[in-house]
Amino acid sequence: MTMRRIKLTVEYDGTGFHGWQRQPDKVTVQGEIEKAIRILTSQDITVYASGRTDAGVHGKEQVCHFEIDCRHPLVAFKDGINRFTSEGISILKAEVVSENFHARFSAIARQYEFLVLNRRAPSSLWRHRAVHVLHPLDIDLMRKSLECLIGEHDFSAFRASSCESSTPVCAMQKFTVEQDGDLLKFKIKADHFLHNMIRITVGTAIDIGRGIIPADSFEVMLKSKDRNDGGKTLPPQGLYFDKVYYRDDYTIYESC
Amino acid sequence: MTMRRIKLTVEYDGTGFHGWQRQPDKVTVQGEIEKAIRILTSQDITVYASGRTDAGVHGKEQVCHFEIDCRHPLVAFKDGINRFTSEGISILKAEVVSENFHARFSAIARQYEFLVLNRRAPSSLWRHRAVHVLHPLDIDLMRKSLECLIGEHDFSAFRASSCESSTPVCAMQKFTVEQDGDLLKFKIKADHFLHNMIRITVGTAIDIGRGIIPADSFEVMLKSKDRNDGGKTLPPQGLYFDKVYYRDDYTIYESC
Repeated sequence: MTMRRIKLTVEYDGTGFHGWQRQPDKVTVQGEIEKAIRILTSQDITVYASGRTDAGVHGKEQVCHFEIDCRHPLVAFKDGINRFTSEGISILKAEVVSENFHARFSAIARQYEFLVLNRRAPSSLWRHRAVHVLHPLDIDLMRKSLECLIGEHDFSAFRASSCESSTPVCAMQKFTVEQDGDLLKFKIKADHFLHNMIRITVGTAIDIGRGIIPADSFEVMLKSKDRNDGGKTLPPQGLYFDKVYYRDDYTIYESC
Repeated sequence: MTMRRIKLTVEYDGTGFHGWQRQPDKVTVQGEIEKAIRILTSQDITVYASGRTDAGVHGKEQVCHFEIDCRHPLVAFKDGINRFTSEGISILKAEVVSENFHARFSAIARQYEFLVLNRRAPSSLWRHRAVHVLHPLDIDLMRKSLECLIGEHDFSAFRASSCESSTPVCAMQKFTVEQDGDLLKFKIKADHFLHNMIRITVGTAIDIGRGIIPADSFEVMLKSKDRNDGGKTLPPQGLYFDKVYYRDDYTIYESC
């Protein structure tokens, strides 16, 4: 038996989960993956994610890792976890990595997506996959207003009161809005994010686009550090944890 | 009170329904819309669709119509049906149309989409929205093999034994395959379709792309009229009723 550190890339449909983090008597993504590993190995281990997601938030390429001492071939942790978790979780990739890799602490940036369905009628097909906004939006105005967020700033005004991050300073690397028919796709990349930061930021962009708050609200918020200067916090179903960027100082020994 | 003919454009998530057609003790799209109209008007009316869809098949812009004698403003049939049907149904548009419009008989063509997720890992986010095919596919070969289907042909080999269509001859107007990352999107347009025709046709294209049936299977099927010369019938969750094309001989009196 040898101890191995295993990295998993995970997709999940947040609809049926009380978020990522394990909670007693609640179905969570972490809880389900740990339960599947327990069924496979009879061992109680803890799985560490690159970052938690809230209830209803989806994962496209979330990354987590764990350490385990067992003889199972690596593929057992891909097919086996897929077999023993609900259909809402898919393990896309499993890798054996060196001990210096940590899903959270080796990360240098995270990227999220936020989908908004912008049309008058609500959607049945997108109801768990996008937030519905029925008001007409000035997309160009939204794009212009977002520009001031790029770079390193104190994002105190974009933070839920529950946020536990040690610093409100984030380096925002990308914040784009693409239009695909009725769908608006926001892509947001930063070194790290504060709790609810994306749902507040996209909500503020939407309220600027609707013309119900001033077009310079983002600049005002960065200066005032006051959450009240922003727009509404959007619901979670439009939010996708897209991917994590890692330092390249670790080794991948095996992959499947 | 005056009799009005009302046309509805409907989106639905097929996942929770036993198909379009009303059935005793089963939740169906037609049944839910008729029930909502009963709640709104206390009248028992029948709703006619452009074409039925099977259990699990989605609707993007399905069209149906009904006749009713009541004083409700048109918007009641949009917002009201949305209010009294489950979240799986969205009325996108309601129109008052002339009496010569019929959702089924005024249609000159229908378009469907079929989504295939082509990658090794299964998907949680697309599990009710696409069919998963894990084998590598030769897309160019699939495209070439489909060309012979365009035009008017006897599609007897592409028909479920349950099919009730009066003629097996269909005029196929479009059959394309687009690639968007791991997703393959088939678009299929014809004057009308036989039962299971798309699920058999796309299934045959996939089996040609996998190399497990001959590349000329479509030509063979058109000649032999034998279902056994084709590939597998795919499951319903990748299939979307996209839209209907109508003759322009009817009048729209009101729209919302």
